[in-house]
Amino acid sequence: MTQHIVSSFDTELDSLRARIAEMGGIAEKMLEDSVRALTRQDVELAQKVIAHDKKLDALQREIEEQAILIIARRQPMAVDLREVIAALRIASDIERIGDMAKNIGKRGIAISSQFHPQKTMNGIETMRDLAAGQLRDVLDAYTHKDEARARDVWQRDGAIDDLYTSLFREFLTYMMEDPRSITYGIHLLFCAKNIERIGDHTTNIAETVFYQVTGHSLPTDRPKGEAMIGTGG
Amino acid sequence: MTQHIVSSFDTELDSLRARIAEMGGIAEKMLEDSVRALTRQDVELAQKVIAHDKKLDALQREIEEQAILIIARRQPMAVDLREVIAALRIASDIERIGDMAKNIGKRGIAISSQFHPQKTMNGIETMRDLAAGQLRDVLDAYTHKDEARARDVWQRDGAIDDLYTSLFREFLTYMMEDPRSITYGIHLLFCAKNIERIGDHTTNIAETVFYQVTGHSLPTDRPKGEAMIGTGG
Repeated sequence: MTQHIVSSFDTELDSLRARIAEMGGIAEKMLEDSVRALTRQDVELAQKVIAHDKKLDALQREIEEQAILIIARRQPMAVDLREVIAALRIASDIERIGDMAKNIGKRGIAISSQFHPQKTMNGIETMRDLAAGQLRDVLDAYTHKDEARARDVWQRDGAIDDLYTSLFREFLTYMMEDPRSITYGIHLLFCAKNIERIGDHTTNIAETVFYQVTGHSLPTDRPKGEAMIGTGG
Repeated sequence: MTQHIVSSFDTELDSLRARIAEMGGIAEKMLEDSVRALTRQDVELAQKVIAHDKKLDALQREIEEQAILIIARRQPMAVDLREVIAALRIASDIERIGDMAKNIGKRGIAISSQFHPQKTMNGIETMRDLAAGQLRDVLDAYTHKDEARARDVWQRDGAIDDLYTSLFREFLTYMMEDPRSITYGIHLLFCAKNIERIGDHTTNIAETVFYQVTGHSLPTDRPKGEAMIGTGG
């Protein structure tokens, strides 16, 4: 293999990485803006978030096409193959994070004319902060091929699950005390659930980064909080 | 290319198709059993559904590995390449359908000790019937490379969205009338949402089958019901 071909392969991988980074940046902004639109009852910002989702879908398709071309042309092995597979998987998780943010945007619009008690917003914002932190860190871990940071994100996700479970209980009490708030409370619960699932996707990405860098998988049983079953929603 | 190599490539595609069919069969059963476990308050059956999800995850990984080997070894073009890409995409959608069924199973366990009014169960069962019909038909469309049937599934999905919206209103009324039913109602709403999303995944698969067979995409704007925004949840 000549130096020329080798460096051209590197260029192809660089371009794949750049597209993943672009997707990650869009998803981070969508998460941030979707919750801001919700808490500030800003319909226009919510509509922007919803519109951004198409860009993520398009980028995911481009990454898919590019990855397949690389596999067919280069028949990469070992760490190079893992990097291409990782790009496919990470693009899929980021696309789904975009879907979740889009849903928060839609729900923000649905309840934009209703009274938003500050207390309910605080819980959502804290969840958003945790999820945004995990997303930022796992994208950094991807950029720097940092398996320790990936493992750290993967271990942290239980905190979002626990916060979701406590918000579920809080919103429930609120709805029981004032049944007129049920529609509002349900939309908020679905928003909280969307953020909880964004956390799940960041742990998926963490697993993929760990696999890409080390060639090994993290244990199948992540130290999970108790969200989703039991008392949770 | 010798006849031998050609027929071996066919064998590889057949094996990919068989694995997709296996995933489809498992997902169909998981959907059926998850709603049955919910309506019959059958915790044991729900646990079986939850356990089945790991099998889908493993099959998806196998399909991914196999597809990548095929692309690297065979460098397929045109319709053959579309078939391999379609297998990757469809495996991902079926895996997500399994996740939804698993969630229904978990929620079924969470509310298994509560009173289940028949009226609320009827709505969930009707949604399940529609989603199961779409899933069955789109798997048939995949098996028979039948783009007309794929397009039909894609056009039908609005019915599930509309039913979800009407159930949302019904459950809401129910919760407002009896605030003690709020926890139960919320779990049911999340179950209904899971079924609605299974419908979305069947339309994704329909789009993929259409693309695989024709090389073209269906229009980007599916004739969608009004679920999710507005009054819906």
